[in-house]
This record gives sequence, structure tokens and C-alpha cells, in this order.
Amino acid sequence: MCELTIGEIYRAQMVLRDVARHPKIIGPTNLSDRCRIYLKPENLQHTGAFKLRGAYYKISQLTDEEKAKGVIACSAGNHAQGVALSATRNGIKSLICLPAGAPISKIEATKRLGAEVCLVPGVYDDAYAKALELKEQMGYTFVHPFNDPKVIAGQGTIGLEIIEEMPEVEAIVVPVGGGGLIAGVAFAVKSLRPDIKVYGVQAAGAPSMAQSLKEQKRVHLNSVSTIADGIAVKEPGDLTYELCKEYVDEIVTVSEDEIAAAILALIEQQKLVAEGAGATAVAAAMFNHLPVDGKKVVCLVSGGNIDVNILNRVINRGLLKKGRLCQLELEVPDKPGTLSQVLKVVAEYGGNILSVNHERVSAATQINSCTLHLELETLNHDHIDRIRQALSDAGFPPVR
Amino acid sequence: MCELTIGEIYRAQMVLRDVARHPKIIGPTNLSDRCRIYLKPENLQHTGAFKLRGAYYKISQLTDEEKAKGVIACSAGNHAQGVALSATRNGIKSLICLPAGAPISKIEATKRLGAEVCLVPGVYDDAYAKALELKEQMGYTFVHPFNDPKVIAGQGTIGLEIIEEMPEVEAIVVPVGGGGLIAGVAFAVKSLRPDIKVYGVQAAGAPSMAQSLKEQKRVHLNSVSTIADGIAVKEPGDLTYELCKEYVDEIVTVSEDEIAAAILALIEQQKLVAEGAGATAVAAAMFNHLPVDGKKVVCLVSGGNIDVNILNRVINRGLLKKGRLCQLELEVPDKPGTLSQVLKVVAEYGGNILSVNHERVSAATQINSCTLHLELETLNHDHIDRIRQALSDAGFPPVR
Repeated sequence: MCELTIGEIYRAQMVLRDVARHPKIIGPTNLSDRCRIYLKPENLQHTGAFKLRGAYYKISQLTDEEKAKGVIACSAGNHAQGVALSATRNGIKSLICLPAGAPISKIEATKRLGAEVCLVPGVYDDAYAKALELKEQMGYTFVHPFNDPKVIAGQGTIGLEIIEEMPEVEAIVVPVGGGGLIAGVAFAVKSLRPDIKVYGVQAAGAPSMAQSLKEQKRVHLNSVSTIADGIAVKEPGDLTYELCKEYVDEIVTVSEDEIAAAILALIEQQKLVAEGAGATAVAAAMFNHLPVDGKKVVCLVSGGNIDVNILNRVINRGLLKKGRLCQLELEVPDKPGTLSQVLKVVAEYGGNILSVNHERVSAATQINSCTLHLELETLNHDHIDRIRQALSDAGFPPVR
Repeated sequence: MCELTIGEIYRAQMVLRDVARHPKIIGPTNLSDRCRIYLKPENLQHTGAFKLRGAYYKISQLTDEEKAKGVIACSAGNHAQGVALSATRNGIKSLICLPAGAPISKIEATKRLGAEVCLVPGVYDDAYAKALELKEQMGYTFVHPFNDPKVIAGQGTIGLEIIEEMPEVEAIVVPVGGGGLIAGVAFAVKSLRPDIKVYGVQAAGAPSMAQSLKEQKRVHLNSVSTIADGIAVKEPGDLTYELCKEYVDEIVTVSEDEIAAAILALIEQQKLVAEGAGATAVAAAMFNHLPVDGKKVVCLVSGGNIDVNILNRVINRGLLKKGRLCQLELEVPDKPGTLSQVLKVVAEYGGNILSVNHERVSAATQINSCTLHLELETLNHDHIDRIRQALSDAGFPPVR
């Protein structure tokens, strides 16, 4: 079907031996009661994601002539950093095309790794077109983020590492965007240990590979929307699609809330920072989207490059959901001392006040009352209920 | 000086072989330009901290009679969880005394690991007194969090692991609270490789060991205050003090802001969650408190059990400091359309609005104006300056 062989994946492993980090599989964890989840932490990889593997192997296999000309890629994310670092380490030039609106932090990270950056007006597709144009003009080698046998072979080394380190594994769960990672992992695993299940996970807001497998043809999505930006891909590659069809047992999807909960669980319980895409495999196992009850399951945490502002929001959302943070709205009499009475009740019941907003003018309130918004640090939903009850008992029933 | 021998630390290593996790040293990292920082990630240890090692080894060495009676400890943190898990795995009973005000999350975590919890009215010292009382009454063995040769031997296994895995290490940096961890690590390292430097780090708000070494006698601090609650210890043990005096090269202190910056750097750059105490060693190396220029330095990340609410605050503070979050106050004319004009300027310059607070009544403002508070997601301090300038140019100069 394509030039991929198990020999090539072993060759990639040899090339990557002293280049990639090889952190140990972590686990068993308590992330699920129904299966034993282990983690393959590629978020601890150089550049914070597995992408280095495929990019490095691809670049290492170029001819001297190709190396002399340099490489080009199009990415606003982990692939860009993987290509930049790989090219720099091989002593060759790299040019990364990015849409002009890409976050400055990502642009800077890519430059720091030694790449030249070309900002292209428009969206990703425009940057992609520009990259292909420059490739033709300048003779650069294009490093595709997923649809390339060498890149797939590089990612496949993760499959080898898992079965070598943990031969008793029964299922491997892999995040899926364009499909390069799972194609490599599934090919490696099924070539050597066909008894091990390989499952893929996509965000429900970007299910291109899942839908393609269902419809038995490559599907192009018009739009994708997910917190897991690393796997927000509209269309799988032809190569990756064929490999998934042949070697992957099933591809499931997870919701945005499930991804956020998995990110928070990895932080709180495993002390690991995962990006949205990186947490999807864990989310699928945690929320029982896979037939793995009682099994030993390795979930690949593919990357950890989450914007800290987004991390902040995920944590806040998680805290609200767990009752660790609470927002109250009260309608209180507009007279001196009221606020202090309310805050006294909150303090007595152990609520820690984060913010107070006291509004006098509001259409919704009676003429002699005003609206009070409180944000509190709390312990759990029971604690919130106790505070609400105490406020009601004191004559200040929360309206929301 | 005490019963500690290198043989005992090797015995502890044997006992812990299949009990502790042994994640690989991570690095070299880019956390400092002046030295090569490597990380020994004990935040990835079971229970999220190194404490399991000492507690498990101590408990494993009890006589059958002692085991039949069970163990008792006093802790609101990582030690409690280490003792609980260790006792449960050894099939013996554990009782943990906690001050009644301890966070529910910590109490629950300790119970989940199989311990019985005894809530004692008052503060830590009261819980400690109660634990000693119960020990006498019931014949439990008391597991001290640091001042015990067996506990120190267990923590010392970390020193063995570092020099075995990375013999080229030139300095090891260790967080210091009561001193059990650094006593064990320094004893192991100096016994085998006296050429390697061992440095300790305390929070400036809880410098009991640093001050004791300076004054050449054990100092008792009246109060301690730091975000690094895991090392907020008022007085070192006699055993740990003597071992530090003999084997540790130097103990330095770090500020709260340095600890917070180290936590954020570990999250953003290394994808690891550290608690305050766990980040102090990294903070000391990052902010050049140690004579390690050009050296290979292993920083021990001792634990990752940070309360998510606190993590949230650390991230927010870090974002503000880096210009990724910005709070503006404007005094604007109180007439229709003003708010929309202001927000249009912000949007044009790429600021992402998180919250808007529009106050009409305020003593500080002119009668025909009102105060506007904006919270924005921004890229960096330059970006903030551009937005401020644009607002000024549009006639809305920020007053703060």
C-alpha cells in the first residue's frame, strides 16, 4: 500500500535513540475504575510533543542535495517546532509558513528553535498554499505533518517503545488528527503484536478520520471546532486513511467537556500538563468510550503545549464543575451593613471570597434592593449547599 | 552520629524496588542559561511526592509485633498520604492525626489510601501532641515525617538513583523543610561521590534549617509563611540538623515570587506540575542563588500536590507578570456608545476581553464620567503598551 515497513520503523528507532527523550510509561493510574490506565507521556518529549520523532526521522533521511537546500513546513503548532528543532540539529535550514494571525508565543518558540518564519496573510490553507509555492520555487523539501511514510515511521517508534517496555499491554489509545501518529503506532503494533488493540480518539468537533472510516471514504469537513487544536484537521491524508482502515480497531470521539476534565485529572492526579489533543486518549478511557473494561490500557499523552490562558480557563471550568469555585447572586436590601452581614455568613461557613460585585441599579431588582455577585473558593458541592442554606437562613437567599 | 549507614540506604533501595515509581531524570532543560538544569521528577511518584519512600521503608522494617499494633503519624500533607499508602500495602493499620481545619481534599485523599483519620481541634502542634498521646496509649509506632534514620534512609534512595542514572552530575539541589530528604540524599551522595555538591533550598518565609546552620545551633522559628506549605517547618530535627551540618554544602533561600515563577516555568516549559515546595530547587537554580554556572545540576522536584485553586492564582500572577493578562482602568465620558467605542479599539488591537466592569457612581470620577475596569488576555508587555497607546489616541487614556 505504501513504502512503510516494520524495518523502517526500527531504523527510525535507531536514528532517534539519542535524539528523542524516552520517559517511562507511567502507571497504573487511578484515572478509571473500569480499566487500568497507563500513560505514555510524550508531553515530556523535546518541544513538548511527539512531532519531533517524525520530523527528525524524515529530515535525517534526506539526500545531501536535499539537505543543502533545506526544508519547508506549514504549521502553527507542534509540527513547526518539531521541524525547526530537527532541521537545526541536522545543521540544515528550515522555513516555516504560518498564518499571520498565529499566536506570537508559537512564532517565537519556532524562531528560538532556529527556523525562519514566513507569515502568510489569511488562514492555515493560505499558509499551506504559500509553502507549496515556495517549495516549487526554491527546491525546498516539504515536510508534511502526517501524510508521509517517513514521518509515519518516526511516529511509529512510539508503538515499538510501548510494546517493548510493557509487553503485557492489552490496548493502546492514540489521539487522531491527520492520522500520522496512529498510522505509525498501529502499523508497528499490529505488525509485531496483532493481539493488542489499537484505538483512535478524535474530538467530536473535528471527527474527520472517524467519519471517513464510517463512510469508507476520505471525508472533508467544512469546519472544525475544538479546544484540541492539535488535532483539528479537516481531512485525513490518503496514506494515513488507508493505514487506519487496515490497522486501527476503532476510532471514537470525545466531547469538549470530557477533554477538559481529562486535562484537569492529569494535572491533579498525575502532575502532568497535557494540551487538548494530548488529553483525548485519556478522556476516551476515563469516560468509557472504549471496550476496555478490566484491561491494561496505555493512553498516549501526545503533547503538552497548551496556552496558559486556556489552561487557566480549563482549570476554572473544572473547579466550577467540582464545586471548588462557586458564583452566587443575591438580591439584598439596599441599606448600610447588609454587605458586611452577608460576608460574615460566608466567612463563618468557610467560603473564601475571590470577588464581590455590588450593583445598585438593575431592572431586575426591587427599588429598595440591590444585586450582589460573589465568587467564592469552596471545598465541594456540599460546602456550597451549606453556604447557600446559611445565607437563606440569614435572610439572604441566593437567587442564582 | 546516628544509625544511618550507606548499607541501610541500599537496603531501602532494595525494599522500594517494586514499590516506588522510578521515572527517569528529565533534561537537559532550558530553564537556565547559566547552568544545565536536569529534573528528578518525584512529583510523578505515587501519592505525588517522595514521602512514600521514607514512610514505606520505615514501616517495612517494623517487627511483627509493631506491625500488629499499627502506625500513627501527624501530617496534613504528603507525609500523611505516604504513611497511609505504605501501611495499607504492608497490610497494617494506620491512624493519621490532622488539625481539624485541614483541607477536606487532603483528608479525603488520606482516607482513600486506607488510613483512619483523627481530626484534632486546634493547629498542627495540637494534632502532634494528640498523636504522641495516642501512640503511648495504644502502642502504635510513630512515623516521624523526617527525624528518623529509617525515614532518612528511604529518602536517601533518591540520591543513589541520581548518581546511578547520571554519574556525570556535578550538583544536586534539594528542597528542605525538616531536612529528612536532604539528609538522606546528602549522606548517600557524599558517601559514594564526595565530589558532587549537594545544596539545599528553603523558602525565605520558613528558613529554619538555613538559619540553624548559620547560627550553628537548631533554631526554632515562631512563625513560618510561604506558598511552599510542604516545607513550612519551624524547627529542624536533631538528626537531620547534624546530617546537614556534616554533609550539605550550603542551604539558600528563595522568595515567593521566585517559587511562583518556577512553578509556571515547569508547567509551560516542562509540562510538569510542581507544588510550592517542589519548585524551590528549580527556583534556586533558575534565579542564580547557587554557585553552579556551567555545571550539570539535578534539581529535585519533590512533589506536585498543589491545590488547584492555588495553582490558578500562581498562573494568574505569572500571566500578569509576563503581560499575558492585563487589567486596565479608564475614566470615560458617561454617554451612550462610549463603552462600545472603547471595546472596538481593544478588539482592533487584538486584546481578548475577559471581563468588563462599568461603574457610574464613584467618588474619584468627575460628575459626567464613569470608571471602566477591563481585564484582557494579551500577548506580552509590548502588546499591552500598544493597546494602551491606541486607547489614549482614541481619547480614552488608561488611568491605571
